[in-house]
Amino acid sequence: MSLLVTGSIGIDTVKTPHGVSEQCLGGSSIYFSMAASFFAPVRFVGVVGDDCPFDLPEVFKGRDVDLGGLEVRAGSKTFVWHGTYQENMNDRTTDHVELNVLAEAPPKVPGAFQDSQFVFLANTAPALQLELLGQVAESKFVAADTMNLWIEDPGHLPALKELLQKIDCLVINDDEAKLLAGHSNLIKAAEDILAMGPEVVIIKKGESGSLMCNRDGRRFLLPAYPATEVNDPTGAGDSFAGGFLGYLAETGRTDFDTLKLALAYGTVVASFTIADFSLDGLTGATRTDIDNRLEALRHLTSF
Amino acid sequence: MSLLVTGSIGIDTVKTPHGVSEQCLGGSSIYFSMAASFFAPVRFVGVVGDDCPFDLPEVFKGRDVDLGGLEVRAGSKTFVWHGTYQENMNDRTTDHVELNVLAEAPPKVPGAFQDSQFVFLANTAPALQLELLGQVAESKFVAADTMNLWIEDPGHLPALKELLQKIDCLVINDDEAKLLAGHSNLIKAAEDILAMGPEVVIIKKGESGSLMCNRDGRRFLLPAYPATEVNDPTGAGDSFAGGFLGYLAETGRTDFDTLKLALAYGTVVASFTIADFSLDGLTGATRTDIDNRLEALRHLTSF
Repeated sequence: MSLLVTGSIGIDTVKTPHGVSEQCLGGSSIYFSMAASFFAPVRFVGVVGDDCPFDLPEVFKGRDVDLGGLEVRAGSKTFVWHGTYQENMNDRTTDHVELNVLAEAPPKVPGAFQDSQFVFLANTAPALQLELLGQVAESKFVAADTMNLWIEDPGHLPALKELLQKIDCLVINDDEAKLLAGHSNLIKAAEDILAMGPEVVIIKKGESGSLMCNRDGRRFLLPAYPATEVNDPTGAGDSFAGGFLGYLAETGRTDFDTLKLALAYGTVVASFTIADFSLDGLTGATRTDIDNRLEALRHLTSF
Repeated sequence: MSLLVTGSIGIDTVKTPHGVSEQCLGGSSIYFSMAASFFAPVRFVGVVGDDCPFDLPEVFKGRDVDLGGLEVRAGSKTFVWHGTYQENMNDRTTDHVELNVLAEAPPKVPGAFQDSQFVFLANTAPALQLELLGQVAESKFVAADTMNLWIEDPGHLPALKELLQKIDCLVINDDEAKLLAGHSNLIKAAEDILAMGPEVVIIKKGESGSLMCNRDGRRFLLPAYPATEVNDPTGAGDSFAGGFLGYLAETGRTDFDTLKLALAYGTVVASFTIADFSLDGLTGATRTDIDNRLEALRHLTSF
């Protein structure tokens, strides 16, 4: 089934203890689309400035990613992000950020994309997520990401609360889930977030894996894939979401057992992303590699 | 099969955001024995002073715990520990400690216990663990716990390294595993520790679950049971070890599939311990409760 993503496209400079990648392609919609394209056709919505150095049709060549929603805005500049990861590869600092085109009006969802059945609203101001969601007609399953910036800001929190009423699934980091719910116990935090609207909440815990709960009281716990090669964690969360929603769009189902398998696919896809800088870890993988690693993860976690 | 534990008996005062428990029974051998007694007969070795306010035969009444290795040392004082847990229930501070009898000679392993097949050396100075292990004849499976104090101290590290050559399994916290191995990646840390001697290493990650690796390259990842009632985490690690070794002693097996199931039992038993102060969470459970929660954990983690 059709899968739509709205999110950022960035010019990233990433430093980790294992190396530096300067002016490489990044951004949530990029990682999401690459990850999801292993499973289902992707409809891409995003905006860059006319300074964008990347040839996105070439980047996604041979993959079923429809760039019909890519806007190259004249006179604007592309989003820039510089970050450094610490020795533990979990903590990172943002060294430099230029929002540029991301601080302007969001891109439009093309008419041909408005019947999308699966939708991912990558992290941005919740008012923009609402505006983008308003352009999609009747979708089957909408997931969104968010972050501390919007939770902590009384100017943005009402829009986030409104968004939570309109989406099916929130994908959120553990610290942000605790912040949003005001609970340090993750299960209780998940239950509080479900009470705010979504049918499903997925809490990402980095190298500690993830947790999924739904409003029927179903729960699923999954460790992260035990990666020994971690060179650049950038994009792990969006790749996770891409694998998750990609598998849902491939099957067309959203029952809890399918959601569990989708979460496992998201986990596995993210493990390929973090193995190398920028998109190199992901583009080096095949669907067979992903399926094999899924079986390995099943074996690693079953008793 | 026979299961021997050597460890501490303490007079604990514990403060958590959910309450205070003053002068309650604690200590590694106490939690371990209570947890293991659901599965197999336990041989208990530990020492208290003649001021000990607890009636241990009464505490373990109706459970198959042989207190033949309990020494009440005249003129000595019992170990005292005061700790406070922070709001997140993971971080704790030690407010007050009196080693007392733990700083004296260790207790003796009675002759009748020296043929024990399964052995747990709870955390103490590695030289004492070696001395206790030296009193056991030919055992099938020896596991030990340790802590940062011994890893960081050049006076104790050589004994710990010697111990690692003589045991089958090290049970260790994630931060301590990173410290011992000098690796921030837990899988690599586990591999480094295996190279130091033991056949199996279990890394405990608190609410993020645990990881087990062996020298044949087998790995197992298990989330923690998603406890919503967490009132006192004291004893979680020793209960975990008790459930783990208790199940091994019950089955008499140490193949990796049995170790996986044993780890799941350890996880489940620990989830009962943390629900209430001191031993109350554990003593309120039945073997049926434990088996039911094991099946729940299996369901929560399978896909």
